[in-house]
Amino acid sequence: MSGAILWFTGMSGGGKSTLAAAVSARIQGIRPLEVLDGDEMRTHLSKGLSFTKEDRDINVRRIGYVARLLARHGVFVITAAISPYADTRNEIRQLASAEGIPFVEVFVNATIESLVARDVKGLYTRALAGEIPHFTGISDPYEPPTHPDIVAYTDKESVEVSARRIVTALVERKLLPEQVLAAEGRL
Amino acid sequence: MSGAILWFTGMSGGGKSTLAAAVSARIQGIRPLEVLDGDEMRTHLSKGLSFTKEDRDINVRRIGYVARLLARHGVFVITAAISPYADTRNEIRQLASAEGIPFVEVFVNATIESLVARDVKGLYTRALAGEIPHFTGISDPYEPPTHPDIVAYTDKESVEVSARRIVTALVERKLLPEQVLAAEGRL
Repeated sequence: MSGAILWFTGMSGGGKSTLAAAVSARIQGIRPLEVLDGDEMRTHLSKGLSFTKEDRDINVRRIGYVARLLARHGVFVITAAISPYADTRNEIRQLASAEGIPFVEVFVNATIESLVARDVKGLYTRALAGEIPHFTGISDPYEPPTHPDIVAYTDKESVEVSARRIVTALVERKLLPEQVLAAEGRL
Repeated sequence: MSGAILWFTGMSGGGKSTLAAAVSARIQGIRPLEVLDGDEMRTHLSKGLSFTKEDRDINVRRIGYVARLLARHGVFVITAAISPYADTRNEIRQLASAEGIPFVEVFVNATIESLVARDVKGLYTRALAGEIPHFTGISDPYEPPTHPDIVAYTDKESVEVSARRIVTALVERKLLPEQVLAAEGRL
């Protein structure tokens, strides 16, 4: 099977990393796999970059660049970064497509109300108090995908349900072997 | 065969990229391969970084990080960046070794006199005139490897001779199949 990029996008605290881990657990040992998590990428590839549009785009392009390098060699790459700008995500999709690398966009869709209510890291409270400039969804834009390949409603469905839907969609697209569905039982 | 990192280090104009291309031509089609060239990395991973020790180290660590990601998935990775600091190169060797990834350091050794005399990009003339701050070997340090795995004397031997010696050393270390030596005839 050829490499592919599964690209999670969505606001902070919506469950991108959690879902990426859940999907990754289903693929582990079945396909060559790498998870490029947003926080880790900020550490390894983009330390020092700010959260202006320009710097966010640079960060997202770097993740896309590394994802393509890996996918080119047959790796199933999962990225989990906010990636708030539609144009930048589309640019990465196009660059991947130009190399024949399937790019599957998953919109992690939770309402801003649910994110504020849960506020797992306490960031929304601080952002609403004006303490965090450039906070996506509060003081910085988030552009939802107009045509996402998959939507995960993480404020309405469990991680297990979202992960299963994503994995099923990937099997249907022949990007994962049917074997991953058999793994459902042991998760 | 598992992945590996072939790490070229040496001053500007010494022939790192040329040698990387020559070695790569011998491996192409035989093993999964990726060349991470210093100039390209500056564009894709490190735009905006300066040439202070701190920023050079960040750049080199990013290249090392991406090289490990690829090597982890069986890719033979060739890097060609000045990477002037011995400690930083050793750090990357250790991180690779900790993952079981072979790291082979090639010191592209050309005397500063030969580099100034050839001055392929006209950079040494400008650096000697004080026009380029932080220019490796002139206004910035270059720390040669104390125990390089391979030394390429690019001011004394041809690209073909250096490339053949490198490829032979890699075959001896079981990092490339003997088949690559058979390719010598058609190059």
